[in-house]
Amino acid sequence: MTETLERIVLASRPVGEPTLNNFRLEKHPISQPGSGQMLLRTLWLSLDPYMRGRMSDAPSYAKPVGIGEVMEGGTVSEVATSNVPRFAKGDIVVGRTGWQSHALSDGSSLQKVDRTRAPIQTALGVLGMPGMTAYMGLLEIGKPVAGETVVVAAASGAVGSVVGQIGRIKGARAIGIAGGPDKCRYVTEELGFDACIDHRAPDFTARLAAACPKGIDVYFENVGGPVFEAVFPLLNPFARIPVCGLISMYNATSLSPGPILLPHLMRATLTKRLTFRGFIVSDFFGRYGDFMRDVSTWVGEGRIKYREDVVEGLENAPRALIGLLRGDNFGKLLVRVAPAPS
Amino acid sequence: MTETLERIVLASRPVGEPTLNNFRLEKHPISQPGSGQMLLRTLWLSLDPYMRGRMSDAPSYAKPVGIGEVMEGGTVSEVATSNVPRFAKGDIVVGRTGWQSHALSDGSSLQKVDRTRAPIQTALGVLGMPGMTAYMGLLEIGKPVAGETVVVAAASGAVGSVVGQIGRIKGARAIGIAGGPDKCRYVTEELGFDACIDHRAPDFTARLAAACPKGIDVYFENVGGPVFEAVFPLLNPFARIPVCGLISMYNATSLSPGPILLPHLMRATLTKRLTFRGFIVSDFFGRYGDFMRDVSTWVGEGRIKYREDVVEGLENAPRALIGLLRGDNFGKLLVRVAPAPS
Repeated sequence: MTETLERIVLASRPVGEPTLNNFRLEKHPISQPGSGQMLLRTLWLSLDPYMRGRMSDAPSYAKPVGIGEVMEGGTVSEVATSNVPRFAKGDIVVGRTGWQSHALSDGSSLQKVDRTRAPIQTALGVLGMPGMTAYMGLLEIGKPVAGETVVVAAASGAVGSVVGQIGRIKGARAIGIAGGPDKCRYVTEELGFDACIDHRAPDFTARLAAACPKGIDVYFENVGGPVFEAVFPLLNPFARIPVCGLISMYNATSLSPGPILLPHLMRATLTKRLTFRGFIVSDFFGRYGDFMRDVSTWVGEGRIKYREDVVEGLENAPRALIGLLRGDNFGKLLVRVAPAPS
Repeated sequence: MTETLERIVLASRPVGEPTLNNFRLEKHPISQPGSGQMLLRTLWLSLDPYMRGRMSDAPSYAKPVGIGEVMEGGTVSEVATSNVPRFAKGDIVVGRTGWQSHALSDGSSLQKVDRTRAPIQTALGVLGMPGMTAYMGLLEIGKPVAGETVVVAAASGAVGSVVGQIGRIKGARAIGIAGGPDKCRYVTEELGFDACIDHRAPDFTARLAAACPKGIDVYFENVGGPVFEAVFPLLNPFARIPVCGLISMYNATSLSPGPILLPHLMRATLTKRLTFRGFIVSDFFGRYGDFMRDVSTWVGEGRIKYREDVVEGLENAPRALIGLLRGDNFGKLLVRVAPAPS
């Protein structure tokens, strides 16, 4: 084979917003798989907000990518050569092989993707980590009840879109927050949310309050910052706040105080009996079967819709991740690393 | 009867720390009970930190005491005259009849106290609201597991003392925080906590860290402020923080920011998957039977000990509440309003 391995490594740690200089595209010869190994050819790479955390060496729940190491990421790949009994050439697998065109694997921590169920790249979106994040956070922590109000930001994105649609399936009102009129229109007209508020509107806070006349029972927190500030006074007694992400802070070089002080938050937590609970999707791995059963059913029934924002070529992944952190994407952000086999 | 009703009303709302001028002692003739009513003679009045909240008209989970109205409070009383079939003269009852020597009642929301089980005033302490607050918050939200570390402040007080002792019963390490060496000695030597740190010590933060070499898994929050600041960096992944009270803030006239900003808290909530949950004991009324069964058993077996700090005479209740908010009491603070019948 004359194929070359292309990979993108972390060249340096960003200060604030990442730049293209923080990444480096490298080319290497492809290693052939040994006994008990297989060679994977990457078809799709998922880009997700958590990747900003891995570029930093601040303490977090996972260790950072080292300088010169390949960027972490979820992928859908085709098995090119297999010396692993469980996998055959041509199988489609989902795993975490990173920002590279090929990878060697012993097959552990890979899952086969059922090509007949849905397009294979949904294993990185609605039927993958983002979908499961939405499902577990909303149902295990948010626990919406019919008639309650669920609010989620980044509502056209991979996680937020599923949060609101599951909220609707459970009989709750779903209020989305998104950036710009096109996304808001999509969230209400295509995804069926009850309302969607543009966080760029100058009267955002007032519009959010107007969209939540009975207050907020579940706020699925994935952005932090000004959106949380608008949500905070609207929280009802016994509201639940699954804390899934804080994308508005990921590029921050310092944490600014904002108008809500810790004592305000604690006082409201006490008097309104709020629940704040942080989670990571991997905390719920034992529930993967439940997630896959429910969400694949809902997708099949057309009750959960999704949208993909596809970037062509691994070399464009850095620019796309930078855009994701700015809110430029519209739907689940994917990189098509190589064309899928027909 | 020539008896007079004495009662203490809220004369004015405090700004900051309450003063004696915020209270007024009144004397009235005693009304005789009508049909379906009974006359209660107050024996014991409980003084508790939540009372500071009722003196303020800031929004909270309960409505404030009105100016000129009798101060709210839990009491143990003797039935003096009864026109209620369910109660007989001489019965001992626990209820919320307030800061007064006598009260009329129709018997609703009163519970009979079993004189043979424990001293009747424990119905206001270890076998009453404070004990149930500790039991529900620790077991339903904190959920300590054997080998984990539980931290609680006001550890010699009515709630904190029970939190730590139940933590020990569940196999956890119990670390108390209290004001001064006498209280700390009592918490370790009498109550059996593994350690107790004096929050007045200049090296309090370092001593707390040294007492928690494996971090903190459950922090039962009843004080807020500098204690929380010392606890915060020690919280382990998946730590649970039942938010029960914030006594350090109750007299505050403004909420100062402190060193921990909201974004710090949210980031830690996410990366450490913390759970903060506010609660009020009445949220768990359905569990009263479980509480009474377990805690009365543990008290009977000597596995839960308690200490009372008794003030003589209703007229001394205001001064005692002011002291409670300063941490002057040592044990469950009670006012003996009248001698118990022999």
